[in-house]
Amino acid sequence: MMPNPPSRRPAWEDSPFMKAARREPADRVPVWLMRQAGRYMAEYRAVREKTSFLELCKNPELSAEVMLTAVEKLGVDAAILFADLLPILEPMGLDLEFTANEGPVIHNPIRQAKDVDRVRELTGLERLDFVLQAVRQTREGLDECLPLIGFAGAPFTLASYAVEGGSSRTYRHVKVLMYTDPPAWHSLMERLARAVSIYLNGQIAAGAQVVQLFDSWVGCLGPDDYRRYVLPHTRAVIESIAPAAPVIHFATGNPALVPLINEAGGAVIGVDWRVRLDDAWRTIGYGKAIQGNLDPVVLLASHSEIRRRVREILDQVAGRPGYIFNLGHGILPQTPVENVIALVDAVHEMGERA
Amino acid sequence: MMPNPPSRRPAWEDSPFMKAARREPADRVPVWLMRQAGRYMAEYRAVREKTSFLELCKNPELSAEVMLTAVEKLGVDAAILFADLLPILEPMGLDLEFTANEGPVIHNPIRQAKDVDRVRELTGLERLDFVLQAVRQTREGLDECLPLIGFAGAPFTLASYAVEGGSSRTYRHVKVLMYTDPPAWHSLMERLARAVSIYLNGQIAAGAQVVQLFDSWVGCLGPDDYRRYVLPHTRAVIESIAPAAPVIHFATGNPALVPLINEAGGAVIGVDWRVRLDDAWRTIGYGKAIQGNLDPVVLLASHSEIRRRVREILDQVAGRPGYIFNLGHGILPQTPVENVIALVDAVHEMGERA
Repeated sequence: MMPNPPSRRPAWEDSPFMKAARREPADRVPVWLMRQAGRYMAEYRAVREKTSFLELCKNPELSAEVMLTAVEKLGVDAAILFADLLPILEPMGLDLEFTANEGPVIHNPIRQAKDVDRVRELTGLERLDFVLQAVRQTREGLDECLPLIGFAGAPFTLASYAVEGGSSRTYRHVKVLMYTDPPAWHSLMERLARAVSIYLNGQIAAGAQVVQLFDSWVGCLGPDDYRRYVLPHTRAVIESIAPAAPVIHFATGNPALVPLINEAGGAVIGVDWRVRLDDAWRTIGYGKAIQGNLDPVVLLASHSEIRRRVREILDQVAGRPGYIFNLGHGILPQTPVENVIALVDAVHEMGERA
Repeated sequence: MMPNPPSRRPAWEDSPFMKAARREPADRVPVWLMRQAGRYMAEYRAVREKTSFLELCKNPELSAEVMLTAVEKLGVDAAILFADLLPILEPMGLDLEFTANEGPVIHNPIRQAKDVDRVRELTGLERLDFVLQAVRQTREGLDECLPLIGFAGAPFTLASYAVEGGSSRTYRHVKVLMYTDPPAWHSLMERLARAVSIYLNGQIAAGAQVVQLFDSWVGCLGPDDYRRYVLPHTRAVIESIAPAAPVIHFATGNPALVPLINEAGGAVIGVDWRVRLDDAWRTIGYGKAIQGNLDPVVLLASHSEIRRRVREILDQVAGRPGYIFNLGHGILPQTPVENVIALVDAVHEMGERA
């Protein structure tokens, strides 16, 4: 066999973001923001006037464009694939629609064992090729110094959507399935975990340097339920990805789950504002990187309040390598874009290594 | 002055519930359930067919009837005043309506300092006399062996409703007021705290043996915000009540707040299912009683699953005095009444002192 030709180490490998993900010291604290391309931004709204959300997600060129515009405008340290959590469910047989008012609706939700049986195994990414194309086009347009984050919903969050059929306050359908038919539940979660694994590995092959797993709805569970019904499946996904790329494992809604989120895996653990960042990092252990955790509502306050909050968070990190600044959840649509820019500037200014 | 005539110690003082609230050993683990009189019960639905929710709350006779019916049907160890969190806001100048679909709506929400100025001080309970009447009539109809719980919304939860004007996913209005105008925020919270204090002391004078403070929405905050913007006000309420009656301080949605909820006060701390009960009690310290924390969705599962969960919770308590069984939040409307009865029976059977 011929040896591979010596390849140049890509510039993104030495970016503050990738260094933080590897817990190496860097010149500055990297920052990116969940939903950094979104309705709060005029350029995004202009695109959405002509295109529905699902059309936008399925148009790689436009998806790349809205993300690259946001990255340039904000000066953040990473791009994230512009996509949605749910289109992965379509090739699995779920009938997804984004309604104007209610958000995502699944017209044939999974409620019992026989519904689980009709969930199709995801064997390839042919029907999700638009996502891989969006990864390629975003990577192509992106500054070589910046990494591109791929992402997917974690199995529990995908299962919640698939079972509830839409958003929920009580998550009663998903919990009832879990509590009354554990074999059907585990079968569904295994199928979702395999699908997410294929999907994320596909994004990495297409050009993503790191992937984030979003367990946005898992905070409705207590620790025992998480351990029994969720942890093994999320762990299977994460184990199937490493060491191809670092995994950011993000969960929101319940600080009592942080030790278990950590146990399930991830090179970086993403936390929300419900817990102090220093407490969370102590719980996780300093052998992992951490991401978070400003309350998105702070971005609706004044620049001086935003700067005060950035200071508070950076003080909790105390210059320790392995920290990525982010919100605890996505940017709210009502956020003034100049406040987001002020936040990014504040993190760069105050998070500079003296 | 003449000495008071020797008064008989009322039977409720030696009930398992009051003993648990004082952390004294009792013959059995007491159980009651948040929303034990509610839409899941046919008798309640029959009343509501003829009466709107607000009419029911303002009718002391019917309020007493729906609660006494529930207590008898379920065999629980305490009654709770049938009332709503929000009517206290009406004499303070807020225009409250219960709509059929959206739930409570406040037509003149508080958004800024000038709105806070128009919030009227609650100086007496004349306009809330129906609540005191409901306390008296419930106490009158209730078995003397059972205590009656009065209740109110905690200042933060009342402020959230008053500021958001209805339910919310992000609590952005309330947080924006808090973050951008702390003096206006504290002024609102002080006014609410004084009102809640008058209200709960009035319920105790009218015949309640214990009161529960509901901080149902506080889980949207992180620990630093809770300490800065909420804790002093909740503490003021609780300090103004003790030692007239034990206070159950209940909060939901964020286990990272448990130490601070405890610090704010309460003879009994109520927790939801997002945290293990044994972990929560260890955090609180065994010098206080604890209440909780079954996930209400478990009541939609089978009797065997309900019994398994009761066993798990009782095992965590390990026979320590000072435990009151409850859910982590209110009974869901979809709950079969026979499952609630099965739960109460299971707690009584398995929680009996050998």
